[in-house]
Amino acid sequence: MKSCTKYMLLLSALILGVCGVTHAAETAGTTLEALSDVQKYERAIHIMAMLLVGFGFLMVFVKKYGRSALTATYLLVSVSIPLYYLKESFYGIGVSEGIIDKMILAEFAAASLLICAGAVLGRLKMGQYILLGVLFVPFYSLNEWIVLNGGLGLISGKVVDTGGSIVIHAFGAIFGLAVAASMTTQREYKTPIECDETSDRYSLLGSMVLWVFWPSFCAALVAPADVPRTAVNVILALCGSTIATYFASVKLRGKISAADIANATLAGGVAIGSTCNLAVPGTAFSIGILAGVVSTFGFAIIQSWLTDTTKKIDTCGVLYLHGLPGVLGGIAALFVVSGISFGSQLAGILITVVLAACSGLISGKVIAVMGRRLEPYVDYEEFEGEASEQEDGQTCIVATDPV
Amino acid sequence: MKSCTKYMLLLSALILGVCGVTHAAETAGTTLEALSDVQKYERAIHIMAMLLVGFGFLMVFVKKYGRSALTATYLLVSVSIPLYYLKESFYGIGVSEGIIDKMILAEFAAASLLICAGAVLGRLKMGQYILLGVLFVPFYSLNEWIVLNGGLGLISGKVVDTGGSIVIHAFGAIFGLAVAASMTTQREYKTPIECDETSDRYSLLGSMVLWVFWPSFCAALVAPADVPRTAVNVILALCGSTIATYFASVKLRGKISAADIANATLAGGVAIGSTCNLAVPGTAFSIGILAGVVSTFGFAIIQSWLTDTTKKIDTCGVLYLHGLPGVLGGIAALFVVSGISFGSQLAGILITVVLAACSGLISGKVIAVMGRRLEPYVDYEEFEGEASEQEDGQTCIVATDPV
Amino acid sequence: MKSCTKYMLLLSALILGVCGVTHAAETAGTTLEALSDVQKYERAIHIMAMLLVGFGFLMVFVKKYGRSALTATYLLVSVSIPLYYLKESFYGIGVSEGIIDKMILAEFAAASLLICAGAVLGRLKMGQYILLGVLFVPFYSLNEWIVLNGGLGLISGKVVDTGGSIVIHAFGAIFGLAVAASMTTQREYKTPIECDETSDRYSLLGSMVLWVFWPSFCAALVAPADVPRTAVNVILALCGSTIATYFASVKLRGKISAADIANATLAGGVAIGSTCNLAVPGTAFSIGILAGVVSTFGFAIIQSWLTDTTKKIDTCGVLYLHGLPGVLGGIAALFVVSGISFGSQLAGILITVVLAACSGLISGKVIAVMGRRLEPYVDYEEFEGEASEQEDGQTCIVATDPV
Repeated sequence: MKSCTKYMLLLSALILGVCGVTHAAETAGTTLEALSDVQKYERAIHIMAMLLVGFGFLMVFVKKYGRSALTATYLLVSVSIPLYYLKESFYGIGVSEGIIDKMILAEFAAASLLICAGAVLGRLKMGQYILLGVLFVPFYSLNEWIVLNGGLGLISGKVVDTGGSIVIHAFGAIFGLAVAASMTTQREYKTPIECDETSDRYSLLGSMVLWVFWPSFCAALVAPADVPRTAVNVILALCGSTIATYFASVKLRGKISAADIANATLAGGVAIGSTCNLAVPGTAFSIGILAGVVSTFGFAIIQSWLTDTTKKIDTCGVLYLHGLPGVLGGIAALFVVSGISFGSQLAGILITVVLAACSGLISGKVIAVMGRRLEPYVDYEEFEGEASEQEDGQTCIVATDPV
Repeated sequence: MKSCTKYMLLLSALILGVCGVTHAAETAGTTLEALSDVQKYERAIHIMAMLLVGFGFLMVFVKKYGRSALTATYLLVSVSIPLYYLKESFYGIGVSEGIIDKMILAEFAAASLLICAGAVLGRLKMGQYILLGVLFVPFYSLNEWIVLNGGLGLISGKVVDTGGSIVIHAFGAIFGLAVAASMTTQREYKTPIECDETSDRYSLLGSMVLWVFWPSFCAALVAPADVPRTAVNVILALCGSTIATYFASVKLRGKISAADIANATLAGGVAIGSTCNLAVPGTAFSIGILAGVVSTFGFAIIQSWLTDTTKKIDTCGVLYLHGLPGVLGGIAALFVVSGISFGSQLAGILITVVLAACSGLISGKVIAVMGRRLEPYVDYEEFEGEASEQEDGQTCIVATDPV
Repeated sequence: MKSCTKYMLLLSALILGVCGVTHAAETAGTTLEALSDVQKYERAIHIMAMLLVGFGFLMVFVKKYGRSALTATYLLVSVSIPLYYLKESFYGIGVSEGIIDKMILAEFAAASLLICAGAVLGRLKMGQYILLGVLFVPFYSLNEWIVLNGGLGLISGKVVDTGGSIVIHAFGAIFGLAVAASMTTQREYKTPIECDETSDRYSLLGSMVLWVFWPSFCAALVAPADVPRTAVNVILALCGSTIATYFASVKLRGKISAADIANATLAGGVAIGSTCNLAVPGTAFSIGILAGVVSTFGFAIIQSWLTDTTKKIDTCGVLYLHGLPGVLGGIAALFVVSGISFGSQLAGILITVVLAACSGLISGKVIAVMGRRLEPYVDYEEFEGEASEQEDGQTCIVATDPV
């Protein structure tokens, strides 16, 4: 127990120390600039609604794990945002970005982390989500730096990825899959993931909140004059994937599935990310339709086949909502954006996939040191009888002997 | 099944073809204009929250039909917005409106469609909601053109309807009632619409989301300097209808009804629509009180009487939340706005009522060709046993032999 | 029954009469000013989401009282906002504040009232919530005037309280505790407050909505150039309290508690209120951590001890979420803000505590005249059998013989 407190204090001290110097350097700006920053702030709030209410409630579909899913969401967001903001404040000195830009970039990191956590949802102890966040942020930042900011000089040209199809969605999904690959147990494989009417309706609430605010996610850092066209493209892409999901779900399953409707409807938003400010409406709509079909095909056909083949569980199906549509979006840019560098774009996708897979595997091994839950997909309240022991284990981030 | 795919491709191709030319014509605008457009965009997002989370969850009050109600909401929005946007892009060439204005007008059409669908909720196959959307948008656009833009030269003066009491709320409600009138079955009449504690709480969530963002709905296309007064008027009208609903509910029913609280509280927002940017606060508050009383009277007294008399079902009671308060709001403008043209305003209301009723009856007949659900108010998951047959039927939009 | 209608008409007439004169005095302003006002309006909508969806659903944790908690939220907001707005319009003549500033101040009053109502949730008749609102607003306004605007000349210097740690959170909590102190019955003391999986998930929804929009609450009236730094401070404080709540909950209880996660996570937002636009990020984060620990300690340790000692019930634990963190935030300003007047700040806190306690006790006595519910924490639907009698009593605001 003492060690936990120590780690917490260490983390706090670190953030305190470095963040303490930041705000003073900010100047007020002209009024027009200030108003533009406030508009970015509005979008930052929209993204926050997506992170907590959107991702959080989308994951409540697991019937008996709702409170834990929401608690995990709270922790993942609260760990990753200060960590990323710390990194930005430390390395970002001299960069012209305002503080609201840094906050939005931190939210992007949190979004990617939540996607990642979806792959192992219900199978980590609560403290392991925190550890996952601590491990994820540096790897995410490294990939972002290499792919978007020319880090290490690996990519010479510009990678087109305004709304993060590649660096946010695909990276998070593949990282999560790698974590899941390195730790799924036989018991988890045999435990069915149950949902019911009420948990489905909560999940659809999360889905709708994501749908509604998705335009603000994609347009968060776009120039004011480009916001309307970006928003229209994202909305049309989401409309496309929603319609396509319905038809594909009925076609492939012979019936409507609440899981498809809650998830694959959003695939258009994932896939339009890379080109959200560059596509024309018709293209955006058709990218959405394509993404909806691919995603529904994933949930309806690939998921059960892949689970049986690999004996690994992807709890929320992040491969089908974020992984495949994310890569699709990155590739779509090759056909949509004139003058795009094919080599850079493909290198960006490839590096993201490889880096996410490797860092996810490493992180999975580290997390496994903390041990595992005995019973997957069960809320923390269920453990009350054995709680004082059980939960102690959860809090000790580096305990080698998980109780 | 082949025909369904064909229809989907046709729809897609149409939208692709015409939308493909739009964005290029947009110019960046000065910075002040750009910022003003971004503010419109913020309101467009608020309206989207109303459409999906607000209307969607308000309709979850039907206990066993929650997932279907949310799926239907997704489809209605995703069909109507691209369709309307297509129409605008086609006919709107040369019009000075920006793309974000077009998107907001498309959202208005979607709102009216969702109101319409409330009247027949739980009694259409999922594919029939899509057909309803395809039929609704042209009629809605026709009425909007005639009443607000002088189409066909039927109305010479200006109709006052900023927030759409007449053209959005009344039109949608009456269209929906006409659809319901042309297709309610004996079986539906005898099936009670059940709700429970959890479905009621979801419904109140939808209600509150609508309440919260209603000012953005009414102020969506208002000039920046008029936004504050419009917002204050809408909030005061909603406060008025909320207080009035409580007192009227207790007075008329002898107890509080969750249905009244979820619905009639919003009547103030419906009724203030026409005059939201023109009224003074006291007037707005009193219009809200009046609308709350009228709406609660509708739910508590008229609804059961009218159902017994006509043997027709209005699932969500759209007549009492949108129909009567909408007409009330249109008429209130006669007393509130100085210099208003009585003839034009009354003609606008009359044309809306007649056009909605006629086009709704026609649409109901067309929709009926696709057949009917055997069991009303039951989620799609319940049909799993017979799904492969059942749901195929749902997707064939013009199938003459509904399975 | 007649008397109820009379009171309603009286209330309406009052508001109508005075509000009727307001809007005309408003001028359009330059475009830059207008855009800035629209941005305030955006934050006003965010606050409204907190009031209805946030506070409303946070209170749905009481299993059988969910619909009533939401109805009460609707009524409390709808009574307090017009009342406060009326006061502002009456006394505020000549003041340079725009109408959107007045609306935001009215929302602040509503927030404080909702906090207050949390202390007695489930134990008032519905009509008594209305009376509570009518009594609360004048006392709240008096305290605001004395502490922030130099009323009565009691405080000479400036009290630092931008986001309302003192005048909104502490005032509301202590007022509510005083009301609860003057009326908790033996029966209520013996009735357990039950919650279940579904009510907990609703409660976490309310919690997350509050978390997400909290930056807009604190930055509502801040100058555009200060909005980003304020937002970052609030977000970091919330991250701090969220992480701290998790560790403290496990440490103090030996397990995770959904009540802690839904409530104490927000303590950082409460405590950063006073200094939200002045602190540096590291300080904001540490204030959040401290508030999270204090709040969790309150819920986990103090609450049961205090309940047993005093035999009084604080239904939602407002002392631990709003009372203690609010005072903490006010005191933190002494260490954070350079050049602060120690005397004024401490006087502001002291006056708020004393005035809230006294006015709460008085209000409790007045409310008690309307009688009490026989069965606490039970939804209004449960009373249907005896409703026509029972609920009549609820509406008669000054009935001396509650049925």
